[in-house]
Amino acid sequence: MRATIEGDQGDIRPGEMQIALPAAFDAGLYFIGQIRTPWTRREECPRRGAADGPVCRLEVDPLFAAALDGLAGAPRLQILYWMDRARRDLVRQTPRRDGLARGTFSIRSPVRPNPIASSIVALVALEPTAVLVRGLDCLDGTPLLDIKPESCAFDAPLGEAAGEAGRT
Amino acid sequence: MRATIEGDQGDIRPGEMQIALPAAFDAGLYFIGQIRTPWTRREECPRRGAADGPVCRLEVDPLFAAALDGLAGAPRLQILYWMDRARRDLVRQTPRRDGLARGTFSIRSPVRPNPIASSIVALVALEPTAVLVRGLDCLDGTPLLDIKPESCAFDAPLGEAAGEAGRT
Repeated sequence: MRATIEGDQGDIRPGEMQIALPAAFDAGLYFIGQIRTPWTRREECPRRGAADGPVCRLEVDPLFAAALDGLAGAPRLQILYWMDRARRDLVRQTPRRDGLARGTFSIRSPVRPNPIASSIVALVALEPTAVLVRGLDCLDGTPLLDIKPESCAFDAPLGEAAGEAGRT
Repeated sequence: MRATIEGDQGDIRPGEMQIALPAAFDAGLYFIGQIRTPWTRREECPRRGAADGPVCRLEVDPLFAAALDGLAGAPRLQILYWMDRARRDLVRQTPRRDGLARGTFSIRSPVRPNPIASSIVALVALEPTAVLVRGLDCLDGTPLLDIKPESCAFDAPLGEAAGEAGRT
């Protein structure tokens, strides 16, 4: 896999550090669907999702629709999605809100080597190829990577519920 | 990017549904390091991580080490990593522990289209290119994808703290 640079490669702010990313990727992702939200421009997105925010729609590719079976039993879900507009080459960054430079892994900025977002949402309704949820804050059309029951909601406050390493 | 099938393509259990995965990936990941744990075989891994479990070591590639700056202020971290032994082609699966088939997105099994694990861990110590944590349960050598401060630990119980769509 040859790496391509996604997102804007905009300005460098004071204190930021840019790196040359590796020439190739190490693993690949499938987009399993897309997220429909009311926000079509970055400036419109709320700073973070809210439990009483608007209902958003996780549209799941029909290929993966059978994987939704059983989801009705999970009141809260963990959603992983791909922040496809974010640059990936800053290891130090300076958020506009406070102007303080710090390491990328010490903040939850979308700008990071692997721009995977993780949000906890409330399940509102389930359709054959879609899931309606509250609590997101992303752009309309954001690629969806995964849906899991929230681990804190049942018996696994730390770690994965089913073991990391293999089938259980 | 041409998709390759990782992990074992083992047996199909009763009630499971296998799909033909797309021929190409939609996005690529960089492994930013690896996770060193006491467990070298699947059977040894605990069912889930524990706050009083052994200290594990997140070894970060020197290319990304500057991104660790500022992490000392986060008592709990969210770790994303890549379950590279897991098959990706089951949309319904039957965990051994109860023998009940259900949709892949309704459980936290490592077997899923994008085998990204998310764990919350306690920060133990910080080194120039490593982070020591408690709370993991994965195999030694597991590829590391991301380190973020836990969102629940400060002001963002739902969603991302810094907005999904762009730099803030």
